[in-house]
Amino acid sequence: MDLHADPVDLTATLVDIPSVSGAEATIADAVEAALTEQAGHLEVVRNGNAVLARTNLGRPSRVIFAGHLDTVPVNENLPLRRDGDTLHGLGTVDMKGGDAVFLSLAATLPEPRHDVTFIFYDCEEVDAVRNGLGRIERELPDWLRADLAVVGEPSNAVIEAGCQGTMRVELRTAGRRAHTARAWMGQNAIHALAEPMRRLAGYQARDVEIDGLRYREGLQAVRLSGGVAGNVVPDEAVLTVNFRFAPDRSAEQAEKHVREIFDGFDLSVVDLSPGALPGLSAPAAAELVQAAGGKAAAKLGWTDVARFAALGMPAVNFGPGDPTLAHTREEFVHAAEIRQVTGVLRQFLTGRASPSPDHHPSRTRSARQ
Amino acid sequence: MDLHADPVDLTATLVDIPSVSGAEATIADAVEAALTEQAGHLEVVRNGNAVLARTNLGRPSRVIFAGHLDTVPVNENLPLRRDGDTLHGLGTVDMKGGDAVFLSLAATLPEPRHDVTFIFYDCEEVDAVRNGLGRIERELPDWLRADLAVVGEPSNAVIEAGCQGTMRVELRTAGRRAHTARAWMGQNAIHALAEPMRRLAGYQARDVEIDGLRYREGLQAVRLSGGVAGNVVPDEAVLTVNFRFAPDRSAEQAEKHVREIFDGFDLSVVDLSPGALPGLSAPAAAELVQAAGGKAAAKLGWTDVARFAALGMPAVNFGPGDPTLAHTREEFVHAAEIRQVTGVLRQFLTGRASPSPDHHPSRTRSARQ
Repeated sequence: MDLHADPVDLTATLVDIPSVSGAEATIADAVEAALTEQAGHLEVVRNGNAVLARTNLGRPSRVIFAGHLDTVPVNENLPLRRDGDTLHGLGTVDMKGGDAVFLSLAATLPEPRHDVTFIFYDCEEVDAVRNGLGRIERELPDWLRADLAVVGEPSNAVIEAGCQGTMRVELRTAGRRAHTARAWMGQNAIHALAEPMRRLAGYQARDVEIDGLRYREGLQAVRLSGGVAGNVVPDEAVLTVNFRFAPDRSAEQAEKHVREIFDGFDLSVVDLSPGALPGLSAPAAAELVQAAGGKAAAKLGWTDVARFAALGMPAVNFGPGDPTLAHTREEFVHAAEIRQVTGVLRQFLTGRASPSPDHHPSRTRSARQ
Repeated sequence: MDLHADPVDLTATLVDIPSVSGAEATIADAVEAALTEQAGHLEVVRNGNAVLARTNLGRPSRVIFAGHLDTVPVNENLPLRRDGDTLHGLGTVDMKGGDAVFLSLAATLPEPRHDVTFIFYDCEEVDAVRNGLGRIERELPDWLRADLAVVGEPSNAVIEAGCQGTMRVELRTAGRRAHTARAWMGQNAIHALAEPMRRLAGYQARDVEIDGLRYREGLQAVRLSGGVAGNVVPDEAVLTVNFRFAPDRSAEQAEKHVREIFDGFDLSVVDLSPGALPGLSAPAAAELVQAAGGKAAAKLGWTDVARFAALGMPAVNFGPGDPTLAHTREEFVHAAEIRQVTGVLRQFLTGRASPSPDHHPSRTRSARQ
């Protein structure tokens, strides 16, 4: 693995090392060896199947660059296939393109303007309890202190700031079983869902602007279940609702809001992850946005950005590739976006426009403004 | 197996021969042997695990007595347990009490007023396609010609006439998948169920009187399903509804009614069984009701009565035991009800009150009126 190669080629190399969640040892070994051998200016540590590397230059601020090494299961989309300037295959979008950008920066910028910490971690695509970042937070907490975190998840090469919170609730109705031939002896729990479903279908979701970014909330039924048998009045039904909320609501406020909507019904919170405010006014974040041409968008989905926000630093998503292709068999990434993200981050860390070949000179010029 | 024993003891004997659906060979063998050896006046045939027996006396009318030999699976409720005058155990209610009554009549009434046909059949408790009566209908159709059918399913020893029809429909809504963080890009199929569920919850079911019997219709949700994942706007949801309809509606009319209720939605009929009109004005049926003291009630559930009605004869349920105990682990039957049903049918077939000991003289007197 040549960290000094074109980050597009480095992406291809990473894609061809299979690394389904839980089986990241091979790729972590390769990343650890490459960083140790080719980036002698970095302090490198291994933690499980995560590899961490940082400068210790005494700069007044520090920026974390984090990317997960794992992918969802293989789906007839390996090995990598190149089609002109497009890379096809598992992980091209989610997120070996971002990993390649960070590895390239790690090896080629010995003296960045900010101290930098690179985190390549495991098990992001599975249950949150297995997430490598969580383990690092427990075992190596000092590695997670910084003034800004950049998570390299695909974002169409646009800085996506903050993230919306997400909450899942189960609304449960109760009834009394009876044979449907004698329905009046029972009470139908499914019929009791008619009213909460009316409220749900009529809900007007809020649009919120924070730091100039537009967050769009949503309240959506994601599961419906109920029924005992084809001839039985059911005594229980469950409606599962997912609330995506803008980061101006705290987790507690979000829960209160949902409980108000479904007032009178039995509600239990299944999971609740707070959002993260964009925090773009913090100096390092503002510098990054400027390097990207002043453009940023609201992050609507929930990502590990929220973990960093919870640790008290502004955090953004910034990576090559279309996030809607993530987890699809057809995922692909355009080489231009890999180069574009590399260029923006290089400028951010050096104060100079990227010296590397750039196929989008107009965008690069715009980033200089 | 002694067919001349007290039908209560005969019930106990039958209960202690396990006969879960599909495994009725042992009980069918015992019934066949007993009828052949102890009821020489009957023509006996075996068909699969069903046993059929009939008189050929040239009477002007014929009555079928039908009982299934199978039970639902054993549920820690065998062997039989007697507690005073109560029999506990699998099949006591559904429906070895009724079988015992019919076997007793088969052996002890060589010269009934009507020609009689006894049908002890298999696989009533499983998919309709396996039902022994259906096989007999295909293979021995002449055995199913009669002027009245009495099905010995538990009916609290009350004649239950006709039966309601039953229809199951699936109402399917469609949408478009999207990530819940970008819900406006999709269309939620579960939300689209709010309107049909409103109609369902507000539906006013009809009460109908036919031949002096009161039928109560019902429209009940029996299943609800939908959902792709906790973070996906679902593109399909299904509401399953069971319509129980009085026998004054044909199957076609019932379907038309349900389609009108859910006008504008995609509906598919999953199953549809027509009801059966009570037909109590037919001579043999009227005689039976008279023998039972003039009392009859509407049958609300769907039973094999409807199969006989479809063959053009009035059909009733009449058997010992509380039907709401059927398929419960705790099923039991009172000896008095077994004797009462035996007495009524004996009177019906002989024109004389039962000579056997009767623990409910008041009811027997009432039956004489």
